Amino acid sequence: MKVTAAHIDAIAAGSSFLATGGGGDPYVGALLAKTFLETFGAVDLIPLERLDDEATVIAVGGIGAPLISLEKLPNGGEQSWALEALERHIGRTADALIAFEVGGVNSLLTFVAAARRGLPVVDADGMGRALPEMQMTTFSIHGVNGTPMAVVDEHGNSAVVTAQDTETAERLTRNIALAMGGQCTSAESAMTGATVKQAAIPGTIGLCHRIGGALTANRNDTPGFLAELTELMAPTAFGCVTRLMDGKVVDVLRRTEGGFDVGTIVLQRLDRAGPDMRISFQNEFLLALEDSALRASVPDLICIVDSETTRPITSDRIRYGQRVAVIAIGAPEVYRSDRALEAVGPRCFGFDVDYVPLEHLL
Amino acid sequence: MKVTAAHIDAIAAGSSFLATGGGGDPYVGALLAKTFLETFGAVDLIPLERLDDEATVIAVGGIGAPLISLEKLPNGGEQSWALEALERHIGRTADALIAFEVGGVNSLLTFVAAARRGLPVVDADGMGRALPEMQMTTFSIHGVNGTPMAVVDEHGNSAVVTAQDTETAERLTRNIALAMGGQCTSAESAMTGATVKQAAIPGTIGLCHRIGGALTANRNDTPGFLAELTELMAPTAFGCVTRLMDGKVVDVLRRTEGGFDVGTIVLQRLDRAGPDMRISFQNEFLLALEDSALRASVPDLICIVDSETTRPITSDRIRYGQRVAVIAIGAPEVYRSDRALEAVGPRCFGFDVDYVPLEHLL
Repeated sequence: MKVTAAHIDAIAAGSSFLATGGGGDPYVGALLAKTFLETFGAVDLIPLERLDDEATVIAVGGIGAPLISLEKLPNGGEQSWALEALERHIGRTADALIAFEVGGVNSLLTFVAAARRGLPVVDADGMGRALPEMQMTTFSIHGVNGTPMAVVDEHGNSAVVTAQDTETAERLTRNIALAMGGQCTSAESAMTGATVKQAAIPGTIGLCHRIGGALTANRNDTPGFLAELTELMAPTAFGCVTRLMDGKVVDVLRRTEGGFDVGTIVLQRLDRAGPDMRISFQNEFLLALEDSALRASVPDLICIVDSETTRPITSDRIRYGQRVAVIAIGAPEVYRSDRALEAVGPRCFGFDVDYVPLEHLL
Repeated sequence: MKVTAAHIDAIAAGSSFLATGGGGDPYVGALLAKTFLETFGAVDLIPLERLDDEATVIAVGGIGAPLISLEKLPNGGEQSWALEALERHIGRTADALIAFEVGGVNSLLTFVAAARRGLPVVDADGMGRALPEMQMTTFSIHGVNGTPMAVVDEHGNSAVVTAQDTETAERLTRNIALAMGGQCTSAESAMTGATVKQAAIPGTIGLCHRIGGALTANRNDTPGFLAELTELMAPTAFGCVTRLMDGKVVDVLRRTEGGFDVGTIVLQRLDRAGPDMRISFQNEFLLALEDSALRASVPDLICIVDSETTRPITSDRIRYGQRVAVIAIGAPEVYRSDRALEAVGPRCFGFDVDYVPLEHLL
């Protein structure tokens, strides 16, 4: 598939849906991606299996608090700068790029860099969603040390970080993101094609494009979207799709802390036929409770769409009074192993709750 | 001069004196320097004027809160790791090393790296004292961008930072130091010999050695030390030497904040013939007030020694009940220009006070 500017809105909508509220608002990223694809030409989206085993694949994307990226605008050069800084450091150039998370703006930023450099993008990513920290990628869970990694800001300041493990890399680069104003751009996890085939979740960019199409085709028709979504997810690595509730946002508690947007939203059921739902987030929506009953938790996906427009709503944009549908999707199996849950289970985010697969909670 | 392990105690004592309370406690650094000089051989201390104009000179030292370095012990490899990381990045190797600040442990750490690598150390530094931030070096005041710079921790994690200006480099590396546990080791400010001749304060390592000798020779004799110190400082770039007071520490307020030790000490005059003195510090002693009367301020040096032993006391070691002498020394002229005072004057540390040269306050 050749990705052009015409594909970007659908990819952006689908990415934002799979981002479970985080991953950065895609508005500015979509403008950038369209401009770069129009200026430098279409980008090849290549299936994972077509990737050469010897290829050098580099992951790019943004790090930081999504709320900040709404006001701290990029200049469009950051992805290339980060990529070049990493390439200089490792002494190899990228043969293909991959999004470390499909969610939100990060899939789009991959196309910005790819268009600028004339490189293909792999139809896969390292999360199948968005998650707030680097050790939560499937790359890291498969044992890939994400460093050396290069981070840059919009002024051309940069740092190339080499860490003994991905948790340390996360801590170092999160603090650098803070010093760069709360948000920065990264090139990381240089891998061989063979490793990417093991460590990435396949087909997620194409999936975003199809989900985005379904979102657009079913404006004002959440049941229609849900039916189409269920069909789209069936052949993928993801699990079951379910609508947790329809509700109204009656409270939003949100603060920007340690380089993250952190908080809780409270949803009142439109039919008043049950208790309020509290959804906690750290960039991404992570835990949905009704009173003390667990309804869904990370790594399963908790996605929120506007009931009227079916637009995905991000944690930095959600606000009092919105009518929303909460949709949960089972995580790919790779995130359900004991090892993966040590990196992405609810306890990793400070919740005193064990992970229970979504299908057991229904 | 060939520096051997036998010189280190005197250099450490003199460095600690010129460090004005900061620059890191020299105890561990002196042990390291002695071990490395004994293991790898003596190090040439070369006068600034003997430096080749084309030589590559790199500054090394520690960054962070001195209090933390009392418990977060180095493994001795950090200086070499930082140096090698920077050399790899810039594609040149060092011909000589220089301390970015003579103060406290940093002069000693320069000898650790120099011994390990068989490199000479330049008899000069970038502060003639210690100061808490990178844009406060005479290198930076002379327009040297301190980056690329490499910072490492004791586990082998590293970051190579490139910044548009030294203030940004300071902010980025300070945050990295925080992520590395509050303290890290740096190699920075790669300069030509010609630049170092313009930008460094000459003769400061040798001066530390002589001050250390005077401190040792005058144990229990503060007036004797003061007389010898005045003689030693006369031919240097430093200004007048004066004893501000003899007092007892009656209060210490200290917190570790933003990667610095920050606080105030209160000294009661031993003769009770005047008001208490309040000395504020950010790693280094920066401002001495009696009631609201300014007695001395940064960039002039405020040095505190134990009245009984003439040992310099650092801001992380000072404690209730100590009997101390407060000695002030005029800063070298390079720190008294308007441009320099914009980087190192009292207002840079949040004090609502203009700099008044020490000799005008007497």
